[in-house]
Formats: sequence, C-alpha cells, structure tokens
Amino acid sequence: MDEESGALPPKEKFSEWYNDILWKAEIIDVRYPVKGLYVWYPHGFAIRKNAYGVLRELLDRDHQEALFPLLIPATEFMKEAEHIKGFEEEVYWVTKGGTGELDIPLALRPTSETAIYPMYALWVRSHADLPIRLYQVVNTFRYETKHTRPLIRLREITSFKEAHTVHTTWEKAEEQVESAVTLYKEFYERLCIPLIISRRPAWDKFPGADYTIAVDTIMPDGKTLQIGTVHHLGDHFSRTFNITYEDEKGEQKFAQQTCYGISERCIAALLSIHGDDHGLILPPEIAPVQVVIVPIVMGKRRDEILSYAIALETTLKEKGLRVKVDGRDIRPGAKYYYWEMRGVPLRLEIGPRDIDARVVTAVSRDGIKRTLPRDRLIEDVRLLFTAFEERLRTRAQASLDQHITRVTLIDQIQDAIEKGVAIGQWCGGLECAQQIEQQSGGSVLGTISGADETLGGKGTCVVCGSSATATLIGRAY
Amino acid sequence: MDEESGALPPKEKFSEWYNDILWKAEIIDVRYPVKGLYVWYPHGFAIRKNAYGVLRELLDRDHQEALFPLLIPATEFMKEAEHIKGFEEEVYWVTKGGTGELDIPLALRPTSETAIYPMYALWVRSHADLPIRLYQVVNTFRYETKHTRPLIRLREITSFKEAHTVHTTWEKAEEQVESAVTLYKEFYERLCIPLIISRRPAWDKFPGADYTIAVDTIMPDGKTLQIGTVHHLGDHFSRTFNITYEDEKGEQKFAQQTCYGISERCIAALLSIHGDDHGLILPPEIAPVQVVIVPIVMGKRRDEILSYAIALETTLKEKGLRVKVDGRDIRPGAKYYYWEMRGVPLRLEIGPRDIDARVVTAVSRDGIKRTLPRDRLIEDVRLLFTAFEERLRTRAQASLDQHITRVTLIDQIQDAIEKGVAIGQWCGGLECAQQIEQQSGGSVLGTISGADETLGGKGTCVVCGSSATATLIGRAY
Repeated sequence: MDEESGALPPKEKFSEWYNDILWKAEIIDVRYPVKGLYVWYPHGFAIRKNAYGVLRELLDRDHQEALFPLLIPATEFMKEAEHIKGFEEEVYWVTKGGTGELDIPLALRPTSETAIYPMYALWVRSHADLPIRLYQVVNTFRYETKHTRPLIRLREITSFKEAHTVHTTWEKAEEQVESAVTLYKEFYERLCIPLIISRRPAWDKFPGADYTIAVDTIMPDGKTLQIGTVHHLGDHFSRTFNITYEDEKGEQKFAQQTCYGISERCIAALLSIHGDDHGLILPPEIAPVQVVIVPIVMGKRRDEILSYAIALETTLKEKGLRVKVDGRDIRPGAKYYYWEMRGVPLRLEIGPRDIDARVVTAVSRDGIKRTLPRDRLIEDVRLLFTAFEERLRTRAQASLDQHITRVTLIDQIQDAIEKGVAIGQWCGGLECAQQIEQQSGGSVLGTISGADETLGGKGTCVVCGSSATATLIGRAY
Repeated sequence: MDEESGALPPKEKFSEWYNDILWKAEIIDVRYPVKGLYVWYPHGFAIRKNAYGVLRELLDRDHQEALFPLLIPATEFMKEAEHIKGFEEEVYWVTKGGTGELDIPLALRPTSETAIYPMYALWVRSHADLPIRLYQVVNTFRYETKHTRPLIRLREITSFKEAHTVHTTWEKAEEQVESAVTLYKEFYERLCIPLIISRRPAWDKFPGADYTIAVDTIMPDGKTLQIGTVHHLGDHFSRTFNITYEDEKGEQKFAQQTCYGISERCIAALLSIHGDDHGLILPPEIAPVQVVIVPIVMGKRRDEILSYAIALETTLKEKGLRVKVDGRDIRPGAKYYYWEMRGVPLRLEIGPRDIDARVVTAVSRDGIKRTLPRDRLIEDVRLLFTAFEERLRTRAQASLDQHITRVTLIDQIQDAIEKGVAIGQWCGGLECAQQIEQQSGGSVLGTISGADETLGGKGTCVVCGSSATATLIGRAY
C-alpha cells in the first residue's frame, strides 16, 4: 500500500502491466503462501462487490439466490461419468477431519452440479414445480497444474456465480440458454466490455452438456479470455440424479437442465480492457469511488477551500454518488496519480478561482477537462458519466475489432492470430480443426452463430471446402 | 415446498418447532447428503442477506471488507500452539489434489487468524499504517463430532463474519473490543434480539486470546446461544506471525490485535426468538417480503380488485417497500397461513368494501387489525412497522427476563437453570466454578461487567464467600 511505488509498465507490455496494476491499484495481493490463492484488498473487493451487484440485479429479475454446500461426497461426485472425467485431475479432496480419516472423501466443489442436483431430485415433483431458476455466488476450487494467474487461472475461484435451471422440455431449456446469453450480454454492456459469442466445438464443451455457448472477450495482448459459459445439459444429469416430473398427462419424465456461470475473470477483463498506462479506468457504475474532489489549497484560503470541498462532497453523497475528498497534505499531482491508478472516473478540482467564479474544474479519467457551473453540478456529473461510459464502450469495441482479422485462406490464420484472433470458415469436422490448429498454432474456439451479423455468416471450410460456419480461431487464456 | 404441510408443533415444544419451521418457512433443507451441511432455500437466503446487509452497513462505518483464501497451509496453521490445540480436533484437511497427494496439507479455515496474519505481517510497517480494521464474510468449517443442528452447530458455517484489527497499544485494542461490543449491540437491536454480555472464564476464551467477551441470548427452551464473540488477542499472534511496526520514536514493536465474529447463529436466534405457533415473525427491516397484499376477490368485481391490488403494490414498491400481491387462486385463509408461516410483518386485505370506502384493512403479524385510509397508506405502514418492531423488542426482552433468576445461594442454581439461566455471584476461582457446575448441572458462562447495571454488580461468591462478580450460569447450545 505504498503510494510512491513508481510508474506502471506501459500497457503494451501487457503481462507486466497486469501483474503490477493488481497491487498498485490495490486489487489483489499475490503474496499469500499457497500457489494460486490470492487476497482481495478492500479496493479490489469493492470493485468485485459492485460488479456482482449488477450481476445479481440482472439475475434477480427471474432467478432466486440460494446457497448449497461446498463439500460434495465422493459418492455423489462420482455419479456422472463424463462429468468426472472432465474434472478428476482438478479436484481437491478433503480426506481428514480432526485427527482421523473420513469414511467418504469430500470434494471441494469445482462447480456445483453434483451438490445441487440431488436436491433438485427431491424438490421437483410436478410440471407445476418448473421452471426452477436458482443461482449462487460461491467459492469453487480447481487444482490447477498449469501456470496460475490472479483472477484468471486460480485454485480458489472466490466469486463463481453459477445458475442452475430445470425445465420440462429440451426446447424450453434452449430458450433459457438464449435468455442467459442475453443476460450476459447485458451484464457486459454494463461493464462496457465487448464480447464474441460462439458455440464451443464438441470436444471443448462442458463435461456432461449437450452443447456450450461461450462468451469471450479479447485481452490487450490479443489472447481471448472466456468470461462466461452457458450450457444446455439436456437430460444427462437428470437421468443420473433422477430428476423427474409428472407432466400434464400424469407421465413421469426426465427434466431438462441448463447451467451457466461467470467467475472473477469478469474483473480481470474489466481491469485489463479499460486500463491504461496510468492505471485503472473504471465505469462509474463499478467504481468504488466515482468522484474524487481535490482541493487546490494554497496560502490563506486553505480552510475555506477545504470546507467548500467537504460541503460539495456532502451534497453529492446525498444524491447517491460515491465521493471522496482527498484532503491529505501532499501535492495535487501526487493525488492525481493516486486516484488515476485506482481508476476513479471523475476528478473535481477546487481552487480559489473556482470558488470565486462558482465553478468546478472537472477532469474525466480519460483526460477531458471541463469547467462546470457549481449550481447544476449533479446533473452535469451524471451527463459526464454517461458520455464517459459511452467512450469506454466505443474504445473497447474498437480495440476488440482491431484484434480481429477475417481470413479466407488457411495460410492467413497464423498471421491473424499474431495480432489477435482470426475468423474464418470451418466445416465442424475434427480433422479440419486439427489441421487449422497445427498450421496456425491457434485453437478452434467456437462457431459464431448466424445471429451475430457482424461476425457470423456461412461459407466454405478453409480446409476442405465443404459448407461451413464462421469460426473463431485464436489463442486462449 | 408443499403449502399444505400441516400445522407447526407448538412453540413450547421448541426443538420440534425449530426443526419444522426450517422447512415449512423455507429457510434450510436438511436433506443434503453430508451430516452438518445444509442448503439455504431462497427465502432463508433472502433473510440471511438482509440481516448481513445490516451488519455490513454497521461495519462499513469504520471497517473495510476484504477477502482471504479458504485454504491455510499446515505450516502456517501450526504456528500458534495454543490456537492449534483449540482447533486440532475440528479441522478438515485437504490432502489430495487431482489424483496425487499434496506436499503440504491444507486446512479448511475454522477461523482465519492464520490466513490473515501472515498478510498483516507484510502490510504493517509503521504506526501510520495502524489501525487496520478489516472484515470478511466467508464460509468456515468445523469437523463437529457432537450432534449437529442447522444454523447452530454446523460443519460448514456458510456466513461467518469475522473482523480482524491491528493496533499500536494494548489499550487501543481494548477500546476496539468495546467498540465491537457496541456494534454488536446495535446489530442485535436492529434484529430486535435482547442480549446478555459477559466475559468468558479463562478456560473458555478463544484459543490465543487475552480475554473473550461473549454475546449470548436465551433461546425459547431456556438454553443460552452464543451469537457473537469479541477477542482481545494482545500480542499472541503478532509475536507468532511477526507483525511489528515502527513507533514514533523509531522503535520496532509488536502490534496488538483483536478479532470478533458473528455466524449464522444470528439467524437461528432471529427465527427462534420471534417466531410463534403460526410460523416466523420477522422484523420489517429483515423480512424479504414486508407487506403481502391479499385481494379478497369474489364474484363480479374480481378483475377490479386484482388491478387495485397490483396498483397498490406498485405504489408501495416505488416507496422502497418489499411488497407482494398474492393473486393465487386459493382461498384467503390459505394465503394467510402461507405468509404467516414465512413471517411477513404486515398483511393488507383488499375487498370490495375497502375499495368503496377508500381504505385498506391492515393486519400485523402479531394479530393487530386496523383500517387505514388509502390516501396516506405509506406513512401509516411506516408507523405500523416502527410500532411492530417495538413490540417485538419488548416481547423478546420480557421472554429473556422471564428466563433469568437471580440467585444468592448455590442451592438455588439448579432450579433456576431448569427454567433458564441463573445469575449469581462467583469469585472467579476454578474450584468454585467446578463446584457450581457439579451441583447445578449448568455451566459457568461468564462474568457480567459492572457496566450492565440490570444484570451486573458485585457481591460475595455463592461458594466461598469471597468478593465476587455477577455471573451467568446456564446450559449453553
């Protein structure tokens, strides 16, 4: 928590920038003595809290929040074969309680299907009980053997929002998948983060799902980051856990399910996509401090200016803004540096001349300076916020677009993924995907649905020439 | 989630009542397939969320929320000898990751001193860094071998609010202890729960603390429930984890610490103390639904009455109340039963005659019926809430008082704890405590500070006749 911690590496050295910003902006302390486990500083925690507040607000429209246990008995966890196979290398096991061995080992949830669905089997009786739409925000665990990275590849995912729904028919579950994708789009729109939505290849879907829709964004280094997934589970789990309902005709049927999740990777994307060489840039809705007031105090009018700043803080707080006066006894430049690092969207400077002229000097985090009349400051600040968010969205979208290259020949893919991702036509075949991956060094990440008119579309496979779909190819985190 | 689940056992059969209300009011499902782990239903979760919302609001005045990992390496966990001894029988150990053994076993935190204090050792450098006041709300784990009980004795405590503070001097840490007790009093005042504050005997303090202040309440069966503790840690942990600061004179000193926690036992107390034979009774601030509107629809005016009810719901929601119209096609009596079970503080009934007379019939959860003019309903509802809360407080305090017997002779203690707790004088000596416990069958729970004028006070020990302090003796959960 040292203020004079020196400059950030430039953002184009993204990996270094990322490592540095985490502690300079007080997001995460990486010095916890277990690999892959990290500590959230209060400032990071407040960003997380606001982002998940938005997510909860959207979910609460037609979901309910619940909470299921962390520990899953091996007997339940081992029931769904495909699911286990997908996770067995990654599960932490509790084998001891006190000084003795447990009779049945307990898994730390890597995800909660096997914790939740035995309860759904008890809860679901009739079609009148459906749909069920529950979610929880919990810590989940993966015994990662790869290189771990704060907020991105973790052993304790501290903030996994997972929703689990139950429906009568496959089609209704499919509608839920679409509804979840729409919800995730809305969530990331609020975070000003642009997305690419695609359908993962069969070999890359969630273990036990019919299919997986993925929500990716592109990080500043051109690699994709998966920041949400939505799974149609069909009746795989309902058959395993015996989740059945009586339909209108009195027949017993297996329920159809979906699940979808977002982890703290949403925070990784938020920090990485908007930040610059000076630090974080936070959308006002997410910023723990939305407005910092810096009194420019010199000489005789010191007390007057400080009181004026505090009065202004009170007024803005009463209107629901998160405001802080920085009254510390350091020079204004050091304060600017401090609050820019932490991503505060708007700085208000108040000096003697501002008071005399009944104005406030407003500087947005992306450098736009204006003089605002004191009397209608609230309205103006709100307008500045809206414009600021719009600029963040536009800037982020432009950066994403810059990283995308449309390709028509397989030979173009390698160059394309040097600077980001390629979108090219792929037939869906495993062999063609392997050839694409071998030749380009990238991964076939997913097919882009026709609904996405900007990126999607039909064509012929860059390998075999058969009928094909626009496909995202790149290097993924 | 069956509506026609039959009547509750009477509350005087408290243990049966408690088990039943948990599922009839949709708080907790106890059928999860591991002993001591439970599932929060959405309604229970919403109560929990509101209660912890109040707690966070109080803490956020001068604390900051952070988040530390669940997993504590054995090497850190084993550092503080006294602390380990207190927990070694109760700790869950992760020993496997994937298919291999871990090099260093990881404890699931039973409490987070050993996770947090290695970080404090890194963060604290100078007296200027102090005080630190952080808290987190997390899941913690105890391998309970005793009989488990939902919300009260758990293997996964899902909602442990733990605060950890660091100070320069022992006296400042003591001030923090007092400030924490005041905060907890305020929290439970908001929940309308009366308290007894005492200082635990030396043998019952937190492992590694100088002393422990306990916050107890009395449950309907007369047993005490510990619903909060505050510990002065002195420099026990700062010496172990090397948390030192440089004071004004440039000398290195060990920091002084406190910690204090509240678990979901606060919810157990909330449900148990206020509920009655018909179900929960929730203070308005905590109730997920504060007002239920029941349209009394009959015959021709059905649609009109329903629209009127929905319009009323909208109006009240706009004013920030949590309101629900129950428009289900079942008889009003069934709706009353349903919402009474779930503890909704206020029911508004709307029939044809209410509409014609521009009034609403309001029935509070404790049975007080009034006719309110439609035009100033918001104000009246707010007043009803305040009066309702006051009645809850008075009723709960009266019940607590009834359970307390002041005793002057050791022979009176056994009778006193048949109906609740005894308060008698005790000198502080171990042998006298043992004699009290053997003869009465109760436990010496703590000495009541002189500051509590109602219950406290000095006198002579009921065993040895030496100078003594008022002491709480009873049976604890």
